[in-house]
Amino acid sequence: MENFKYYNPTKVLFGKDVLEQFCTEITPMGKKALLIIGKNAVKASGLYARVVSLMNICGISHYTYEGIKANPIVQDADEATALAKEKKVDMVIAVGGGSVIDTAKAVAIGYYVNHSVWDFYTQKASKPTQALPLFTILTLAATGTEMNSGSVLQNDALGMKLGYSAPCMFPKVSFLDPALTLTVPLNQTAYGISDLISHALEQFFGKGNSPLSDLYTAAVIKLAIQYGEKLILNLQDYEAREQIMWLATNALNGTLKAGKNAGDWGVHDFEHTLSVLYDIAHGAGLSIVYPAWLRHQQPKINAKLAFLAKEVFGVDASNETLAANIFIQKLETFYTLIGTPIKLSQAGILPSQRDTILANLILNKVNGSVYTLNETDYGQILDRMW
Amino acid sequence: MENFKYYNPTKVLFGKDVLEQFCTEITPMGKKALLIIGKNAVKASGLYARVVSLMNICGISHYTYEGIKANPIVQDADEATALAKEKKVDMVIAVGGGSVIDTAKAVAIGYYVNHSVWDFYTQKASKPTQALPLFTILTLAATGTEMNSGSVLQNDALGMKLGYSAPCMFPKVSFLDPALTLTVPLNQTAYGISDLISHALEQFFGKGNSPLSDLYTAAVIKLAIQYGEKLILNLQDYEAREQIMWLATNALNGTLKAGKNAGDWGVHDFEHTLSVLYDIAHGAGLSIVYPAWLRHQQPKINAKLAFLAKEVFGVDASNETLAANIFIQKLETFYTLIGTPIKLSQAGILPSQRDTILANLILNKVNGSVYTLNETDYGQILDRMW
Repeated sequence: MENFKYYNPTKVLFGKDVLEQFCTEITPMGKKALLIIGKNAVKASGLYARVVSLMNICGISHYTYEGIKANPIVQDADEATALAKEKKVDMVIAVGGGSVIDTAKAVAIGYYVNHSVWDFYTQKASKPTQALPLFTILTLAATGTEMNSGSVLQNDALGMKLGYSAPCMFPKVSFLDPALTLTVPLNQTAYGISDLISHALEQFFGKGNSPLSDLYTAAVIKLAIQYGEKLILNLQDYEAREQIMWLATNALNGTLKAGKNAGDWGVHDFEHTLSVLYDIAHGAGLSIVYPAWLRHQQPKINAKLAFLAKEVFGVDASNETLAANIFIQKLETFYTLIGTPIKLSQAGILPSQRDTILANLILNKVNGSVYTLNETDYGQILDRMW
Repeated sequence: MENFKYYNPTKVLFGKDVLEQFCTEITPMGKKALLIIGKNAVKASGLYARVVSLMNICGISHYTYEGIKANPIVQDADEATALAKEKKVDMVIAVGGGSVIDTAKAVAIGYYVNHSVWDFYTQKASKPTQALPLFTILTLAATGTEMNSGSVLQNDALGMKLGYSAPCMFPKVSFLDPALTLTVPLNQTAYGISDLISHALEQFFGKGNSPLSDLYTAAVIKLAIQYGEKLILNLQDYEAREQIMWLATNALNGTLKAGKNAGDWGVHDFEHTLSVLYDIAHGAGLSIVYPAWLRHQQPKINAKLAFLAKEVFGVDASNETLAANIFIQKLETFYTLIGTPIKLSQAGILPSQRDTILANLILNKVNGSVYTLNETDYGQILDRMW
């Protein structure tokens, strides 16, 4: 194993009606909160009204910043930070999916500085040492941000999408009630499952030999496929919703990383280019890039893929290459079954876009930390995506 | 799944020479520390001198409480607490195995009250809300206490051994360098492995259906057996030491409990009677009680054991009872191979002790939270242990 640090102070309250514990958790933190929400969903579902009502009951006044979009942008984070400063709030409460929570994390650290939060993401500003207490009420099982210290923001003006992380960015408490995800539509449900599987894979291909993390990773992918297939058939299946929700959290809360130096994250980096250029859903982009990347790297990773073929699908082939092929094919079949694309054309991105994509990959110096990528790799991976 | 809380703020620094980060972590906490150590091992190995030297380098003065025994006793915890109060220390540093760390946890909460720490364990005192910051330097892979909020103490005068837990009892930072366990002798190494497997099993038999926790549990047991067999053949095998160390931490840091209401813990409760009466090593007692308990409960748990047989040993029998039998037999074979006892007679406890043991089980109202035990069960389980 590689030397590693394991640290995750987020308290997760998981299960039906955990919002009953909301007041107990937030009232010690102060009197004023900034609520951050997305465009429509949490108002349409009645969740926003429920949270506002809870805040009134526990005597916390609130201000709301509304309209965070699916690939969250730095402008929203800066505007919400300005509101938090103006109102001198004591805490930030994110009600939504990964984009809302990632924005809220930026606000939590932006509150204590006098520059755009983007300066953190570009590493121009030094690491933040303090942040407003952050509470999250999750409505979409996907990114895992509810139990980690990372955040990803997009800067449309610069054509960049960057991740950032600092120990003070962990949510203080995350409320995970699977019932709040019952209204997530089919496509978003599928993209979330694609996202969580890709998080498990990125860490699996990280540096370091960690047998326990590898078995944990296989367990997460195996159950994501099992319950993913179940959930797609019935979006109201509470048991499947709760499994997928906890799997998504596990996929990126540190559990799968222990004993590794870091994940590879080359596929995520590659996908960010698609999100920036075409505003494609992150999970949809990932299910397109991953199979292509796996096939491109196959000579180097056959043994690892054969391990996954065995643990995830029960394929016990004596021939590693064959087992690896089967894993990739079965993964693609699963993606297709749940309705997340595996080819760019399915997302309406035509081969005529090749040069545009290539230019953005080069601009952003897209790379993995273990399986490094150059311009030749970009082209070869891209060619597998149509 | 059952509703659950997942909260574990302990920072773990894992790997070779993580003590290089010692000063960075402890100096923000104050100027004076109470060191707590066992009887001989950490002085003999030179670790104590190394820690003292580190503390001098980082400018922290220290006092030492020495002599914690393998089944730690409340008298030591109270005496160490008195020393901590007298010297007005700012932090507690445990250097040793589970018994030293469990004692240090009691001291950390005892510091702020004016009664014996035993009053916490008997639930006579109300839950502590504050504790001295606790740092641990682990020298034995076994109990998992380095990354949880629990502590077990023994009261010889009362013939009782009780566990206790509170959120403020999590260590602040735990230093886990597998190299510090290279000098652990064969028998203690085996008892540690037995202990970690039993922790995984107790949670596996807890209330609630949690597919991810079940696969995680199987992964922990599978690797404990794989690397346990390797380690027993060569106690200097660093890779096996690091695997066993991380497995022991994982077995009781909350990872295997998510989605369950609680563990069963009936076997642990049963074993405490053996420790109290005969001062037997905890892990040795567990490897005796568990097979007997599994056979006693078999009609109720065949399906669960068949799952473990498949995931841990690759046994894919169509007959559940047969698969369950194989799991128990293979577990016993493993215990025997690594040299931890599976029968009371191997620990020098003869059938003439039956009534004495029975009386203590009754006195302590030994029970599991899911698989409840009565006096008839006590006798039947005991009879399987000779």
